[in-house]
Amino acid sequence: MRDDIPTPALLLDLGRFEANVTRMATHLRDRGKAFRPHAKTHKCPEIARRLLAAGAVGACTARLSEAEVFADHGIPGLLVTTAVIGAPKIARAVELAARAPDTIFVVETEQNVRELSEAAARVPGVTLNLAVDLYFGRTGVAPGASACDLARFITKQPRVRFAGLQSYDGAAAHTAPFDARRTRTSGSMKQAVETRRLIERDGIECPLVTGGSTGTYRIDSEIEGVTEIQPGSFVFMDMEYAAIGGPDGTEYRDFAQALTVVTTVVSRRPGVAIVDGGYKAFATDRPFTPVPVDLPGVTYAWAGDEHGRLDLSKAERDVRVGDRIEFVPPHCDPTVNLYDVIHALRGDTVEGAWAVAARGKSQ
Amino acid sequence: MRDDIPTPALLLDLGRFEANVTRMATHLRDRGKAFRPHAKTHKCPEIARRLLAAGAVGACTARLSEAEVFADHGIPGLLVTTAVIGAPKIARAVELAARAPDTIFVVETEQNVRELSEAAARVPGVTLNLAVDLYFGRTGVAPGASACDLARFITKQPRVRFAGLQSYDGAAAHTAPFDARRTRTSGSMKQAVETRRLIERDGIECPLVTGGSTGTYRIDSEIEGVTEIQPGSFVFMDMEYAAIGGPDGTEYRDFAQALTVVTTVVSRRPGVAIVDGGYKAFATDRPFTPVPVDLPGVTYAWAGDEHGRLDLSKAERDVRVGDRIEFVPPHCDPTVNLYDVIHALRGDTVEGAWAVAARGKSQ
Repeated sequence: MRDDIPTPALLLDLGRFEANVTRMATHLRDRGKAFRPHAKTHKCPEIARRLLAAGAVGACTARLSEAEVFADHGIPGLLVTTAVIGAPKIARAVELAARAPDTIFVVETEQNVRELSEAAARVPGVTLNLAVDLYFGRTGVAPGASACDLARFITKQPRVRFAGLQSYDGAAAHTAPFDARRTRTSGSMKQAVETRRLIERDGIECPLVTGGSTGTYRIDSEIEGVTEIQPGSFVFMDMEYAAIGGPDGTEYRDFAQALTVVTTVVSRRPGVAIVDGGYKAFATDRPFTPVPVDLPGVTYAWAGDEHGRLDLSKAERDVRVGDRIEFVPPHCDPTVNLYDVIHALRGDTVEGAWAVAARGKSQ
Repeated sequence: MRDDIPTPALLLDLGRFEANVTRMATHLRDRGKAFRPHAKTHKCPEIARRLLAAGAVGACTARLSEAEVFADHGIPGLLVTTAVIGAPKIARAVELAARAPDTIFVVETEQNVRELSEAAARVPGVTLNLAVDLYFGRTGVAPGASACDLARFITKQPRVRFAGLQSYDGAAAHTAPFDARRTRTSGSMKQAVETRRLIERDGIECPLVTGGSTGTYRIDSEIEGVTEIQPGSFVFMDMEYAAIGGPDGTEYRDFAQALTVVTTVVSRRPGVAIVDGGYKAFATDRPFTPVPVDLPGVTYAWAGDEHGRLDLSKAERDVRVGDRIEFVPPHCDPTVNLYDVIHALRGDTVEGAWAVAARGKSQ
């Protein structure tokens, strides 16, 4: 049962999770876009399997080691969204492609393409699928002529195949309000589609234009020429995504908050309760603190690596040592990365303890 | 070799680590204080073994699940520094005490003592060692009469034994400058010693007054009546501890920076390099960002879950895709908690890959 789970722990509300998955999968299917959800959010093979069952074509992973874990668990259609740099990792990428030939890797330099091509040539039967990573503020090559040049370069190297364009504008995902988000992501995606047109004008097939996020999927999925969307956080949601705002200017309500962190009150003094969740229980990269569920008037403050402090001065009900308090995490991805297990709940019944098998796999 | 380790990864400079351990162990031995280093920092049985070899009497752990891991690895003298709350965890505490009878648990309420006593009574041969947790701003019972009352209560319950006082003033550790730190920790420790005197005046033996930190060990170890020091971060050090200042007003230099996070440059544009370490590679709870080692003029900014951005505009040397860049982490404990392995290096030679076996064990 819910109350038997040792704290701090990650809890997933299955009803909300399933509704989130259905909503995203249906939206994209109705618009003819492929659905390759980003597994960096959940790092959990059981969730990847459920997304495949809902119609996903595979899973994005941020890193090679993450992709290796999902391949070990039989997840097909992997897209590794960080360039694979250095001879040892390139050799591993080739090994991964040998057992999961549909895996796609992203590239931004000719040198990296050459190294991948040469490494693939050392393993019989392997051809690597390479997508050109487009630059929208972090990694990649500029859309337009530079990207076309790299695509053409790929087509001329042995044992690599041009797969298309990785078009992820990380900053667009959390741009607020909605209209500014529309402007930003439309601008980026249209550059990607235009780049595709330039590449195909050269006689090079460009089957893939993949990008988008939980914040931008509605906008991106209306753009002709975008072939697939790779959202991550919609499965769980968090405070950060709730705050970006929907089209009506209020909280972003497309998806329900399905993930919480449960803690226990371990100490109590007048006006204050201390819970057993601090910097090791919640990611701390956002400028806001975890929000307690069903505890109106109560706020949380960080109290070190292992503890949080609840201000009870405006609490509407009493809080005692031993009480279990759930929180909405500020930012889901790095919070999930702190835990080995996601406890999947239907009401108070535990339906599963799902391994976060790729936790810590940032390599 | 150092450069074969996949990034991002934790590196430990063994020469510096060993010097840190020797310095702390020698300092405490010379002053007749027991040394029970806090394992919440490293979560690594190999490090706990090396600290025992240097003279430690055991290891503190923040949580029960952490203590279970260290007991599994044969580490004696465990002190669990968070109260064990709720029937399932109390049952586990009794199981732990059955196989590791010298384990000490902390308490702050009579109810918790009663529950621990009753649970111990259900397992033949188990007596739990309980230390009263003193309040200095977070958890515990007020020093003085309240603590005496709880100590006396423990002596009257069956199957529990009063072990002494847990006297940890978390806020003292990082109080700056040094003189303010001296004032704060001396005040707290003297309350603990006075509480011990009151308890012993009642005819109750109080063998243990344990507390202190990497920031306060020099001060605490001069106080008569304090029996042991439980520092953690000195094994690694971090930016936060360097910033607290030493007695001469400069950087805190008692211990050397032994821990780094190594990353790889995965993308490069004019004036900017992107490395493969972001919120999942460094704890983000401090208001400063990781500092690159041996890269004068270069600063790091967060660039999301998986990336960091280096400003190269004032760099004194070139940085290229594939370069490996090491960083001093802002805060060691929650950073180590992100990794499964500490790579122990002597120069460029890897002497060991030490499991962070209690990583994520916050329960």
